[in-house]
Amino acid sequence: MLPVTQPWTLYGVTLDSRLLLGTAGYPSPAVLREALQVSGTQVVTVGLKRTLGAAGDNGFIDLIRELLPVQGARLLPNTAGCRTAREAITLAHMARELYDTPWLKLEVVGDEHTLQPDPWELVHAAGQLVRDGFDVFPYCTDDLVTCQRLLDAGCQVLMPWGAPIGSGQGLLNPFALRTLRERLPGVPLIVDAGIGAPAHAAQALELGLDGVLLNSAVAQAGDPVRMAAAFAHAVKAGRLGREAGVMAPQSMAVASTPVTGRPFLIG
Amino acid sequence: MLPVTQPWTLYGVTLDSRLLLGTAGYPSPAVLREALQVSGTQVVTVGLKRTLGAAGDNGFIDLIRELLPVQGARLLPNTAGCRTAREAITLAHMARELYDTPWLKLEVVGDEHTLQPDPWELVHAAGQLVRDGFDVFPYCTDDLVTCQRLLDAGCQVLMPWGAPIGSGQGLLNPFALRTLRERLPGVPLIVDAGIGAPAHAAQALELGLDGVLLNSAVAQAGDPVRMAAAFAHAVKAGRLGREAGVMAPQSMAVASTPVTGRPFLIG
Amino acid sequence: MLPVTQPWTLYGVTLDSRLLLGTAGYPSPAVLREALQVSGTQVVTVGLKRTLGAAGDNGFIDLIRELLPVQGARLLPNTAGCRTAREAITLAHMARELYDTPWLKLEVVGDEHTLQPDPWELVHAAGQLVRDGFDVFPYCTDDLVTCQRLLDAGCQVLMPWGAPIGSGQGLLNPFALRTLRERLPGVPLIVDAGIGAPAHAAQALELGLDGVLLNSAVAQAGDPVRMAAAFAHAVKAGRLGREAGVMAPQSMAVASTPVTGRPFLIG
Amino acid sequence: MLPVTQPWTLYGVTLDSRLLLGTAGYPSPAVLREALQVSGTQVVTVGLKRTLGAAGDNGFIDLIRELLPVQGARLLPNTAGCRTAREAITLAHMARELYDTPWLKLEVVGDEHTLQPDPWELVHAAGQLVRDGFDVFPYCTDDLVTCQRLLDAGCQVLMPWGAPIGSGQGLLNPFALRTLRERLPGVPLIVDAGIGAPAHAAQALELGLDGVLLNSAVAQAGDPVRMAAAFAHAVKAGRLGREAGVMAPQSMAVASTPVTGRPFLIG
Repeated sequence: MLPVTQPWTLYGVTLDSRLLLGTAGYPSPAVLREALQVSGTQVVTVGLKRTLGAAGDNGFIDLIRELLPVQGARLLPNTAGCRTAREAITLAHMARELYDTPWLKLEVVGDEHTLQPDPWELVHAAGQLVRDGFDVFPYCTDDLVTCQRLLDAGCQVLMPWGAPIGSGQGLLNPFALRTLRERLPGVPLIVDAGIGAPAHAAQALELGLDGVLLNSAVAQAGDPVRMAAAFAHAVKAGRLGREAGVMAPQSMAVASTPVTGRPFLIG
Repeated sequence: MLPVTQPWTLYGVTLDSRLLLGTAGYPSPAVLREALQVSGTQVVTVGLKRTLGAAGDNGFIDLIRELLPVQGARLLPNTAGCRTAREAITLAHMARELYDTPWLKLEVVGDEHTLQPDPWELVHAAGQLVRDGFDVFPYCTDDLVTCQRLLDAGCQVLMPWGAPIGSGQGLLNPFALRTLRERLPGVPLIVDAGIGAPAHAAQALELGLDGVLLNSAVAQAGDPVRMAAAFAHAVKAGRLGREAGVMAPQSMAVASTPVTGRPFLIG
Repeated sequence: MLPVTQPWTLYGVTLDSRLLLGTAGYPSPAVLREALQVSGTQVVTVGLKRTLGAAGDNGFIDLIRELLPVQGARLLPNTAGCRTAREAITLAHMARELYDTPWLKLEVVGDEHTLQPDPWELVHAAGQLVRDGFDVFPYCTDDLVTCQRLLDAGCQVLMPWGAPIGSGQGLLNPFALRTLRERLPGVPLIVDAGIGAPAHAAQALELGLDGVLLNSAVAQAGDPVRMAAAFAHAVKAGRLGREAGVMAPQSMAVASTPVTGRPFLIG
Repeated sequence: MLPVTQPWTLYGVTLDSRLLLGTAGYPSPAVLREALQVSGTQVVTVGLKRTLGAAGDNGFIDLIRELLPVQGARLLPNTAGCRTAREAITLAHMARELYDTPWLKLEVVGDEHTLQPDPWELVHAAGQLVRDGFDVFPYCTDDLVTCQRLLDAGCQVLMPWGAPIGSGQGLLNPFALRTLRERLPGVPLIVDAGIGAPAHAAQALELGLDGVLLNSAVAQAGDPVRMAAAFAHAVKAGRLGREAGVMAPQSMAVASTPVTGRPFLIG
């Protein structure tokens, strides 16, 4: 029997997959459909601004709705594109009506170039939305104090960035992420943004973060379906590695093949 | 149908798994057996010096022999512990008698602290062993000129190190490994030594190396069986990522969720 | 005539040296005195909590006061150890009385383990202190939005961290520091905390940051006076490199010694 | 009195400066002249192939000859562009005639893309040239066994690369350089090639290497004279830091400013 990763829980919902996927920028609905299936993801984000746009959504939401029950997945609407707490709160309420879910990925952009979160607007919006009954997944920076304020505001999950959205640079500051893990035991931490390659996802899980959310790395790959499979393996690799206990690096060589002596410690 | 990695070929033998495993230092025969099974490995190394030792091998070789056919794996005897070409050549011939295989992982240690290969002794021994009919897998450094000399000597596979044996430091010089990949297209390249975590293995495959060989990272994990599963996923993750085309990192953010417009490029 | 670094300006005061030094933890007053002299520093920080302590200051402040005019240096009192804006503001006012300077390094600790700044308390305290007439030097994280809020609050200088205080880890997130430089042109940026080695200081200046503030790296060196000289050279090296234009890295080799042709482009 | 770096010795010649400079690719003789003066260098390399070329040398060698005594510098002719030991040996003998010095920077290129040294040709040529009475400075890789073979061949100085020539990538494998330092105590080690920024040079000296040789980083800077000054400071920074004892990095914060207690350990 093959070892499998431990299940985890987000706002009372137990999940097996630790890979969360965005749905933007795929070459076609067919590719999106197949990538989601192959990934095994159980949480799928959609941008509210887009789907609420006047131009229609190209059948996108119907596609997502159809896919979710097939793989036991949930929708995580996001407030991508919002610049203020007020705007995000308004959009969140519209989303709850539209999608009938209290889950919300809260994004409040604080800078046009890095698209980084604005900690102040984020904490403010999170507090209000928690009071309004939402299950808030805040997209935040890797700053410990900001994360603590989000927890104080009632968030039960945090989504720190690894690098700017769509940059594919991986984990720019592993020290900060490791600090979050050590100082916030028990809090589900999902690296959101910046993951570009499967190795980045594995590294995040090895550091003890609980999951990763990504979009561009799959949607913009030469072969998105194959890349979805790559990331499905990567999160399992990283998580199983974390559970199994990664060896501590040594500064010098240690012969793995002893020249003499008995091969096993026991037996 | 889930995407699977492309098969590859070592000395005419086509393999599906890109994970090669050592067999030293496991806590017990039962754990070794289960780790090998879970890993899906098709190439298993054993140290000749140990198994030829006077003290007996504790049933080790019988165990390996029994396991190999079960998972369609091959034995790759190694010359770990040899300090000279002469010593390695002698040991290689004994190994061929004993194990009835032309495959040989050639190790000639050049330094007691890093246990790094000695390029001169290695090239010399490789040339002789190729002439003697062996299929030589040289454990070498990441030096391009040394690798070219090994190819000139008749090696058809190369096994550059990532870091010193047993150090678990990962890929100390990704630039050198990338250079090997670019300059030696078509040559099977296996990162041997230094891999400590699943993310290291994924990174190696993403760089275009064809496989990884490791031992300590699995054998010395808190839970070797679970770690074997982790690495099985990691090499699939890295290889599928390579095949799918990893996105190029961007210096700045690129919104993955467009705020307006149609969600798909086509359809 | 040897090239020298450009002067820079902090709150209207023009300085030649880009090395700011703390004064804690030196083995003796004599070593502190000599290290400050050798460093050429023109800005020296002192902890208010210590000097205001009931136990007396061991002649420390008299020493500092005596040294400052000798090397044309200014005192920068700091609020190290404060946990809230309120506490920092109270201490700042006492400092202005005591030292007769509007300059203030504002520290408000937000976490006991990393001793990182608390962005919220920091912005709040900065706004009040600016209104009270202080020239505020906030010790902050490398978060762009936080830095923008500090500028909005009236700060004219920012002091982002490189790594946790006293850790000597260097620049944990060069990407974030480069972003600050690009997005906040014209704002004096001083890396404060985390610098452990001269190369770290040079790197900070090469990235375009304007100065560095450090303490442990000098005070806890085996030979603090010699290390003070090392850092004096390092900031000049990094700044001159920035001014001269550091070459862009190339992925491959470019022969610096042409084999044929005329040696100079002109002449 | 300002602390200065310890002098060091190359083939019996004691030097103060730890910065060695190439002379190719400068915009004009005047800039080359001024850069050399500002750098304080005491060892200057020239490419033999160029100066022996039929087209004449544009007054280059006369310029170098005139400069050397002014700053107490020595010429280090190099065999850049040679592909075989035989070619390098022939050129070396011509150089000794021409420049009347036993010093020789031995380069034997083993790959056209990386311009990396060929360890085999290099060791072979070094042995012959030592027997012929040269003081050989081999440009080599960072491979410990290769370095040991060069020492066995009679070299008393080694010049391992940091990265490919002209790439400006800095130290690609600090682990390998640190290993050389630890395993070859007492041997003068000069990082040659790959240095792109002053911080790279400081880092090399902090690791315990004895000097750096560079060319492109200065010659191709926007302002070569200013960059020469930058590197002059950088090698002093790194070396003084090494001598003073760089602090060990800490994983967590350590308050440098104690809140209570006496400020000095003694006095």
